[in-house]
Amino acid sequence: MNYLVGIDGGGTSCRAALADAGGRILATGKSGSANIMTDMNTARLNILGATEAAFTAAGVSTSLVASASAVLGLAGANVGGNGAQLQAMLPFKNALVYSDGVIALQGALGDADGTVVIVGTGSVYVTRSGEEIRFAGGWGFKVSDLGGGARLGRDLLEETLLAYDGFHPSSALTDAVMRRFGGNPHQIVQFAHSASPGDFGTFAPMLFEYASLDDPVAVALIGRSVRNIEEGLDAVMPSDDSRLSLLGGLGSLYGPLLSPRYKARLQEPLNDPLTGAVQLAVHHFSGAGVEHMHG
Amino acid sequence: MNYLVGIDGGGTSCRAALADAGGRILATGKSGSANIMTDMNTARLNILGATEAAFTAAGVSTSLVASASAVLGLAGANVGGNGAQLQAMLPFKNALVYSDGVIALQGALGDADGTVVIVGTGSVYVTRSGEEIRFAGGWGFKVSDLGGGARLGRDLLEETLLAYDGFHPSSALTDAVMRRFGGNPHQIVQFAHSASPGDFGTFAPMLFEYASLDDPVAVALIGRSVRNIEEGLDAVMPSDDSRLSLLGGLGSLYGPLLSPRYKARLQEPLNDPLTGAVQLAVHHFSGAGVEHMHG
Repeated sequence: MNYLVGIDGGGTSCRAALADAGGRILATGKSGSANIMTDMNTARLNILGATEAAFTAAGVSTSLVASASAVLGLAGANVGGNGAQLQAMLPFKNALVYSDGVIALQGALGDADGTVVIVGTGSVYVTRSGEEIRFAGGWGFKVSDLGGGARLGRDLLEETLLAYDGFHPSSALTDAVMRRFGGNPHQIVQFAHSASPGDFGTFAPMLFEYASLDDPVAVALIGRSVRNIEEGLDAVMPSDDSRLSLLGGLGSLYGPLLSPRYKARLQEPLNDPLTGAVQLAVHHFSGAGVEHMHG
Repeated sequence: MNYLVGIDGGGTSCRAALADAGGRILATGKSGSANIMTDMNTARLNILGATEAAFTAAGVSTSLVASASAVLGLAGANVGGNGAQLQAMLPFKNALVYSDGVIALQGALGDADGTVVIVGTGSVYVTRSGEEIRFAGGWGFKVSDLGGGARLGRDLLEETLLAYDGFHPSSALTDAVMRRFGGNPHQIVQFAHSASPGDFGTFAPMLFEYASLDDPVAVALIGRSVRNIEEGLDAVMPSDDSRLSLLGGLGSLYGPLLSPRYKARLQEPLNDPLTGAVQLAVHHFSGAGVEHMHG
């Protein structure tokens, strides 16, 4: 039996799926963070931990990990030599390390051409056209990731301070934010000083909620973000009828706000990124036999 | 002899002026940073160091520091209890601690009503109307300080990445920035990851230079910043003919770009902040006698 392994690893946790050679998932396992940008060795250990948990859950001996073939989708795998460095450290017979965006695209669109925008704390565009996969955006909160939750939250704090100073009009939303900080602008400054992108992102749901209530500040900020996201789509999407999925924590909130030309192409993701990793493992390691097994 | 001391202290250095009771500056002295936000004790030592240097340069015994009256303008003095805490630690007979914006306003406008905008790495508005002095903006790079050098530089790096991805048009300016980073967007990300506000601000002069050459990206970013600064002025300036000065490293670059309604009120700063501190010391500690000595 040639087992396949799919891995979906990020800064919070690592998930593994054990599948048979046809891609049927037998069991999954989970462990801690697999952030290869900050701690390669811990990432390696948690990848192994999640994999062994999946094998154990399926009743398969973990001694067979060494004979399995794996596809891994990991945040930061496309930066510098991170992916290649990890690939050499893994316990599998064969392993391919991709950026997390690649397995997300495969999961969402299957084998079809198209674009996914992953909009969570950040924002990144992944487009497949035949054999070619291209990335755009996603350079991080400080100088990129427009439309992502961190940028939205930061923008909201800025608008709250502009309203406090009378530079811009206040609204029910900026009033609510100011109350959260005890009416004290210095508390906003203090929060912002040490806030992670995720911390800023905690304000994003509030923005969508107030936008749905026609709060003018929320409508303006969300409207600008929708325009930013569509500028990205204008640049990366072919003008044909290829598919579009919005993923990540904010994807489903942006979907209904898109212009008709993009809403028409929007589809729910077919599967999650972990399933996408397993599908890619089938493509790469099970060869032509797969078609037969599926057929 | 009742000596007066003016202090202008910030994150880079601390300057002191020794003056007679009429405000005539006898000598100045300089020392290291006086950042009361990050290190109160070092700030105190450098304030004393600059003061003793001024006394020595004037040929006055430093034993007379203890009988002098001082006005200090220090960044961060208006945050929490910083100013009051320092005031209790100082070696002078009398001491008043103000925010650096107050001595800058006094220096620039003298005793007249009006507004100064200090636009360097950050941006802050200080307005005097009779006895009242109000601050606006200046909440820091992360959520405020629109038009400041750090925000301009960050915006430029964002535009450079948007041009790299084809989301926005490129220009000679974004091409030049990309070349600075070896044509590698990851190098921009790496720079931004650890850049201080001052590091981002190093790109601001380049923006003004390219705007003067009609580079469309530079014109758009500088134009937006001018609008941001004027939104602030609309909010804080009385509609009478009170005066306006633009201070800080970018002040003289923004001046010519203001709308006619503000350019008409613009004037060169009369004096520097250190002289402003001495003037305030005269007002507070020399009383009516000053008028006589000046007359």
